[in-house]
Amino acid sequence: MIILVLNCGSSSIKYQVLNMNTENDYNLLAKGIVERIGLETGVLNHRAEGKEKYFLEKKINNHKEGIRLVLDTLVDPDRGVLKDLGDINAVGHRVAHGGEFFRSSQLVNSDTIEKIDKCSELAPLHNPANLAGINAISALMPATPQVAVFDTSFHQSIPEHAYMYAIPYEYYTKHKIRRYGFHGTSHKYVAQRGCELAGMDFLKSKVITCHLGNGGSITAVKNGESVDTTMGFTPLEGVIMGTRCGDIDAGIVTFLQEKESLSASDVNAVLNKKSGFIGIFGNSSDARDIEDAAAAGDPKAKLALKMFEYKVLKYIGSYAAAMNGVDLIVFTGGIGENDPNIREFVGESLSFLGVDFNPDANRGVRGKDVIITRKGSRVTMAAICTNEELVIARDTMILTKK
Amino acid sequence: MIILVLNCGSSSIKYQVLNMNTENDYNLLAKGIVERIGLETGVLNHRAEGKEKYFLEKKINNHKEGIRLVLDTLVDPDRGVLKDLGDINAVGHRVAHGGEFFRSSQLVNSDTIEKIDKCSELAPLHNPANLAGINAISALMPATPQVAVFDTSFHQSIPEHAYMYAIPYEYYTKHKIRRYGFHGTSHKYVAQRGCELAGMDFLKSKVITCHLGNGGSITAVKNGESVDTTMGFTPLEGVIMGTRCGDIDAGIVTFLQEKESLSASDVNAVLNKKSGFIGIFGNSSDARDIEDAAAAGDPKAKLALKMFEYKVLKYIGSYAAAMNGVDLIVFTGGIGENDPNIREFVGESLSFLGVDFNPDANRGVRGKDVIITRKGSRVTMAAICTNEELVIARDTMILTKK
Repeated sequence: MIILVLNCGSSSIKYQVLNMNTENDYNLLAKGIVERIGLETGVLNHRAEGKEKYFLEKKINNHKEGIRLVLDTLVDPDRGVLKDLGDINAVGHRVAHGGEFFRSSQLVNSDTIEKIDKCSELAPLHNPANLAGINAISALMPATPQVAVFDTSFHQSIPEHAYMYAIPYEYYTKHKIRRYGFHGTSHKYVAQRGCELAGMDFLKSKVITCHLGNGGSITAVKNGESVDTTMGFTPLEGVIMGTRCGDIDAGIVTFLQEKESLSASDVNAVLNKKSGFIGIFGNSSDARDIEDAAAAGDPKAKLALKMFEYKVLKYIGSYAAAMNGVDLIVFTGGIGENDPNIREFVGESLSFLGVDFNPDANRGVRGKDVIITRKGSRVTMAAICTNEELVIARDTMILTKK
Repeated sequence: MIILVLNCGSSSIKYQVLNMNTENDYNLLAKGIVERIGLETGVLNHRAEGKEKYFLEKKINNHKEGIRLVLDTLVDPDRGVLKDLGDINAVGHRVAHGGEFFRSSQLVNSDTIEKIDKCSELAPLHNPANLAGINAISALMPATPQVAVFDTSFHQSIPEHAYMYAIPYEYYTKHKIRRYGFHGTSHKYVAQRGCELAGMDFLKSKVITCHLGNGGSITAVKNGESVDTTMGFTPLEGVIMGTRCGDIDAGIVTFLQEKESLSASDVNAVLNKKSGFIGIFGNSSDARDIEDAAAAGDPKAKLALKMFEYKVLKYIGSYAAAMNGVDLIVFTGGIGENDPNIREFVGESLSFLGVDFNPDANRGVRGKDVIITRKGSRVTMAAICTNEELVIARDTMILTKK
């Protein structure tokens, strides 16, 4: 079964074509990205199994033109991997926000589309782009079934006392202000994969998943369900990120507005785009640059890393308490997969929980799924490569086969 | 040694007179409160050892007049406890904010006064009132030494990676935005007293203190020093409180401003005065009312309590991780001392840490300092009655004897 996976951003389209034999037996036929949609010059970067990389520059006016370009490239005799668009059995879309409507992935129909549209207020940059992608496929391949896979739906199992904020209740009723959480597809995938690797039953285990990249979130997964997560109403809450502040005293937001004469939208931009790693370090939001600067002795780089590591550690502790224990701690995402230091810091700091960290296993993990604690460790730790596209393809296969 | 302890609020003065023989051997001679300073009718409620309660209504224009009334009452032949004001050996003041200036209590001199004044920007309601109290004593009892005991100073040992926020670094340099923490006198007192009760060495132990009242904060105390606390730049951050939201996604602050057309100061008022227990429950900010309503089946009262308990539990877990373990967990404050449910919930939820909770000991704790775990419990839990006035009197005695 051939599945096209689409992840439409506000000015970009990421795609993968996967040939799925079963949920675990599959191969990647092609992947690529369209960028700079709507700008003077758009670009396509395309890579097909067994063929040369392909790069194209041309004006791309909108998501429909971008998707048409992707489809044309996929069936191109020289660069493509398919004979005919009819070879694509289904299309799976990453959709940013499913609000309280969706607890799982959904076949796309008029009701799905209406609800995704209703959630646009909660994700004004992402949901309209996701809908543009769905509409483009409906227009270009009207007979092909589509599936929406939501970044939020895995977290819909979080109980009320963990998703409500202690602000006037009417703001929940009126504006739907509550914790939603994001990166759900990744958290679910790595929690499952981690349990598989550790020989644990996903449905009978307490797992903490740390998806740490330019954006980052941590999730408590109990018996297969998300029971809490660090991102909240927006992706600003939680751990320190590349340019996002994570948790701060809400009193700072209003103090800053008054002291610096900033509007609500100004201060929001500061907290989302000029904070986190770049706010403390000053020169880059990229964890690799900060690691390098810290190794060279830069005190602000060292501080930024220490703040980040400490915050991750505290969330792991809080979720262990929330679940009255933890069996498995998983690291994933750009930093989680590639930075041995954060894993080592957490491992060494949790000896009180019975973590028996394995520094040898922790080195050279890159690109592999590895257990990084010793045999017999009371809590297991693992580094797992996330694969959101695979989850989207799996859900798309399952829902369209029904 | 006779010490007058003063706690001056914006329109009130709380006082106690203690006769201190040693740090631990003392007796309370009188206590009371002046309220409604500056309003049409002010009031004094006074209670002296072995005498009838005394109540007075009269206009009290300012703190100086209020303090003069207190002093007059203390030497009044019928209602007082002293022959002469000269019997007061020293005066200790609770001061809200010491910024980064004060790591410990201080003898009051012109330098102390100047620095307390500089911190007024960080505590605009409290520090000016504290200074008014200090100035009134200087005017009325110029020869009596005074000591300032800061709500923040115990937390000045918190390391940089725990007190910095991941916002642009310049906001720390320019506006001193960082975590300060509050309730320091209480956290220090109950951590010490708890160690004493549990037979632990305060300077070699990992303690988590939960000061839970109408305001609430939790502190991690390692080897006698505060290493982290939940209140931050302002007393808004951390656990859910009577009318304060505690931790929320900073993105909510700006979202609410835009959706509800609120100014920075409006939304600050909502988060400080209409959130927390009253925000969720709606009818009261008092934990006792909410307990009653929850017992009667009110779903929002149940939700408010569950949110509160869950948040406290998560902070305890995070601080256990921050210290790589915990020896002692202490509950204090109006809720911490008097509500057995929060202690039971925490105790039962931390069995993974080796907490062996003792439900029998947990009942009927009111007004006593009690260990609420069984002998041999890997982590000890205790309920301790806080006594901030005693700490102020002790520090005042120590500093003025030098």
